[in-house]
Amino acid sequence: MTGKFISLEGGEGAGKSSAIKAIEAWLEQHNIPYLLTREPGGTPMAEEIRELVLSAREETVAANTELLLVFASRVQHLSEKILPAIAQGKWVISDRFVDSSYVYQGIARGIDETVIDGLTNTFLQGQLPDKTLLLDVPVDIGMSRVQTRGEANRLDGESLAFHEKVRAGFLARADQEPSRFAVIDASQSIDSVEQQIIAQLNQLLLGTSA
Amino acid sequence: MTGKFISLEGGEGAGKSSAIKAIEAWLEQHNIPYLLTREPGGTPMAEEIRELVLSAREETVAANTELLLVFASRVQHLSEKILPAIAQGKWVISDRFVDSSYVYQGIARGIDETVIDGLTNTFLQGQLPDKTLLLDVPVDIGMSRVQTRGEANRLDGESLAFHEKVRAGFLARADQEPSRFAVIDASQSIDSVEQQIIAQLNQLLLGTSA
Repeated sequence: MTGKFISLEGGEGAGKSSAIKAIEAWLEQHNIPYLLTREPGGTPMAEEIRELVLSAREETVAANTELLLVFASRVQHLSEKILPAIAQGKWVISDRFVDSSYVYQGIARGIDETVIDGLTNTFLQGQLPDKTLLLDVPVDIGMSRVQTRGEANRLDGESLAFHEKVRAGFLARADQEPSRFAVIDASQSIDSVEQQIIAQLNQLLLGTSA
Repeated sequence: MTGKFISLEGGEGAGKSSAIKAIEAWLEQHNIPYLLTREPGGTPMAEEIRELVLSAREETVAANTELLLVFASRVQHLSEKILPAIAQGKWVISDRFVDSSYVYQGIARGIDETVIDGLTNTFLQGQLPDKTLLLDVPVDIGMSRVQTRGEANRLDGESLAFHEKVRAGFLARADQEPSRFAVIDASQSIDSVEQQIIAQLNQLLLGTSA
């Protein structure tokens, strides 16, 4: 039996960390072998590429340079870590995957969607997640959560308008691929969010054994 | 007046270093401002990407990861160094450019030409060299030159058949784009090779002022 590939997406304060804990507990409970991973990064080389992208430098980094580096990291992560784990029957849970490129590189760096489509089609070859859980939360709620946990500095330099664009960008992705995406209402209580996520996992498990 | 972009290509022992010296002397003689550069690399960040590609590691590097990294380096080199220099009226001479990806990544790593075409069209957007000087030499001559200069170890692990494929690969590229490529018979004496190169430069200069 081959495994499943699930990605988590969402903006600041959407609650991805809590969601991952709930998923992990569900996987343990069902005795499903799994791998938790994250992007950018996921393998030693992919982490080196991540550092190269994120490190401060005097040189201007072209938007396309950054996009190609992020995809190099993703291709390495996919081929050396995600796909082998799926082949071993594991469920792979990745904190972010390709949809984050569409939203962040697309919006923040202004790269055209068709350019990202080209890389996705050529280099991911349809190896998209079986299910993408989009934790959707209104920007004001997400930002107040981040402030509460004392990480407000992570939002420095990004305007409210930027976060609104990110939210709209993710929702537009979900609209384009309704069968892959599950939009989770993450404005609700932790319990309610967990229940929504578990309903999706049960459905995915049912699909597997059917 | 905008500058020109010239790339040099060729296999081992083709005489690229001597060719660059001859080109430099000709540019000085004609008071043409110029920039000598090389791939992979060419900017600090592009050099970091080069190190990342070339460094030994336990992790298997997927062929597509390598290709995307090489293109990230190339896009950075082009946008931050080559294009600004051309805009300033300089002639840019690059030791290798995109044709080396077609030949080396294509042949050595087995990546399909159409995949490299896709990256070239999207990310180089027609910003190919005005002229590509292909220094062509039969493999046995090239290899004996490399051995003479005591760098035989650079050929370790690569079979004669590999070098034949590289030569054929470059010649096939030249056949596909005869107006961009000038095939230089690099089996001849240094003087004769220089004359062939200078004839190409004169023609390019004439084209500029016409």
